[in-house]
Amino acid sequence: MDPGTGSKEQIMAFVEQIVANPNIPVKNRIAVFDNDGTLWAEKPHYFQEDFINNRLSALPQPQVSKLLKMTQKAIDKTGREPISEEGKISLSEIPVTLGLTTDDYDTVARSFLNNIHSAMASEDDGDYQRFNNPYIELTYQPVIELVDYLKANQFKVYICSGGGIYFVRSFSDEAYGIPTEEVIGTAIKTHYDETGNTVVRGPDDDDEFGLAHYDDQEGKPVGIELFIGKKPLIAVGNSSGDFEMFKYTDSGVGNSLIVLINHDDCDREYKYNDVAGNTHEECHRNFHGDEICTVVPDNESLDYAQTRDNWIVVSMQSDFHTIFDPEFEVSRSEQPVCN
Amino acid sequence: MDPGTGSKEQIMAFVEQIVANPNIPVKNRIAVFDNDGTLWAEKPHYFQEDFINNRLSALPQPQVSKLLKMTQKAIDKTGREPISEEGKISLSEIPVTLGLTTDDYDTVARSFLNNIHSAMASEDDGDYQRFNNPYIELTYQPVIELVDYLKANQFKVYICSGGGIYFVRSFSDEAYGIPTEEVIGTAIKTHYDETGNTVVRGPDDDDEFGLAHYDDQEGKPVGIELFIGKKPLIAVGNSSGDFEMFKYTDSGVGNSLIVLINHDDCDREYKYNDVAGNTHEECHRNFHGDEICTVVPDNESLDYAQTRDNWIVVSMQSDFHTIFDPEFEVSRSEQPVCN
Repeated sequence: MDPGTGSKEQIMAFVEQIVANPNIPVKNRIAVFDNDGTLWAEKPHYFQEDFINNRLSALPQPQVSKLLKMTQKAIDKTGREPISEEGKISLSEIPVTLGLTTDDYDTVARSFLNNIHSAMASEDDGDYQRFNNPYIELTYQPVIELVDYLKANQFKVYICSGGGIYFVRSFSDEAYGIPTEEVIGTAIKTHYDETGNTVVRGPDDDDEFGLAHYDDQEGKPVGIELFIGKKPLIAVGNSSGDFEMFKYTDSGVGNSLIVLINHDDCDREYKYNDVAGNTHEECHRNFHGDEICTVVPDNESLDYAQTRDNWIVVSMQSDFHTIFDPEFEVSRSEQPVCN
Repeated sequence: MDPGTGSKEQIMAFVEQIVANPNIPVKNRIAVFDNDGTLWAEKPHYFQEDFINNRLSALPQPQVSKLLKMTQKAIDKTGREPISEEGKISLSEIPVTLGLTTDDYDTVARSFLNNIHSAMASEDDGDYQRFNNPYIELTYQPVIELVDYLKANQFKVYICSGGGIYFVRSFSDEAYGIPTEEVIGTAIKTHYDETGNTVVRGPDDDDEFGLAHYDDQEGKPVGIELFIGKKPLIAVGNSSGDFEMFKYTDSGVGNSLIVLINHDDCDREYKYNDVAGNTHEECHRNFHGDEICTVVPDNESLDYAQTRDNWIVVSMQSDFHTIFDPEFEVSRSEQPVCN
């Protein structure tokens, strides 16, 4: 972040106060970072969604229809408690990666992330002009600098992602310096295959098809307690999906810090959900098949941040000296139209 | 372990070879330890079982009956794939700790572990003479020395327990120097309570009553991939419940080490399942209510160890210079009858 602005100083002042406080043991220095939209880009689609579509596109149509039916069945089973888009993506990933070992999956996911981003451009990209680089290069350099700064101050830095745990692990160490064991995310069920002594994607019984852990929204605090067992001092995110993680981490001014990355830079990245108070309608079907619609904030976390001193909103436009690593020369084939 | 015996030297030779090997990065130095019977005692009953019975004994009888029915229903739901005794214990723990936050649970469990062990003695203790000390003191000093030795050699040391993840975490840091985030275990479902911003034990919907993760037998490799995402180089355990974790870790002589703690010391601790080749009959009821019985090895891991050079059997009788920390002065009210 640019040294001239306030958000960098606020973050550093908080960290210095933690480090200087003899009542806070080093083992409590835990920070959690969302991934999509926080550590790398998430438009026009979550990258994991592109990964799935890329795999589907290689399959014959009848097989695709069958796989989509399996996924819909699993999504329907989540029933009354609708899961987020990111949760659904992890469910949709199961059929196209079923039976792979974690090692094989790793290779497949990494190979995709090293492919050219623009190759995936499609009509439903909407207003978002794709970058013309491999996905792996679309990470936010200033946020990685924050990860490094926290690690230098003896923080254990975790990712807590609504996206797939194994998907994020396939690149987290190389891209962010965050090892696999510090990545929490939505996890599909796996099982032990005793013939190969390997762990294989998918349940050993088709009826059990589904998630082992849902790590978005209210699933984030549950994931933090399951995987870490300690309340973080710092949480970094960007959206409504992080709201429960933020509230859970927020134990009062001075004891915790919430950092919200605000996507307000149409020129250099994307501009969305960056204005407090905006709302939209969201619909889902309940168990009886009825459509239930509710008006929800575009960004519940941003709205709440307006009322809390220890929730810092970081503007990508004014606080980020760069968005991506300049070495990667991230560019678009044409510039977006910005208002 | 006693410097004069072979098992200590074998372990050290393996660790030295790993540390000297430039092709094995430090981040791959992962060791996993079973808990019950490996890091602390497990007789006459798993300590978590005593914890549950202690809580049940404080409740009025009608409430106990209701709670036991809830547990049986959840156990029945596990159906065709019978779960181990340790898995069942975690299920039985749900009703007596329902609604507690993780912090509250921690306090309750620690308070129990600091109570006098002998107070729990009951008729079904069988041949096992209880130690007259708090549970927290019944940890194996030589195994903790191994944990410390591995940490000094930059290993990340995890517990991978069939017992409850939150139960083990309540004492692991103090007793073993293993922090909460390096404890994997059987986990009950929890949910986020948005009014208190806390994570609470039990699902938010009674129909979902059950386990979030089963971490015994074939669940151990699944847990290792879910929580760590890397294959360990070293696995330490004592029983059939560790067999799949051992097989999964075992990638061939020279690349992995399996350490089996053998309970062959009736005088100083207990003697059980310590002879290769012995078997017994195990029965469970399937979905249709039919009783299915099979002959199983007393200790499948011990049997298999006879065939593998990189599976080391550590004798508690001859390889342990002491069982418990001498500072705790662990004793029994009367000596057991040993053959």
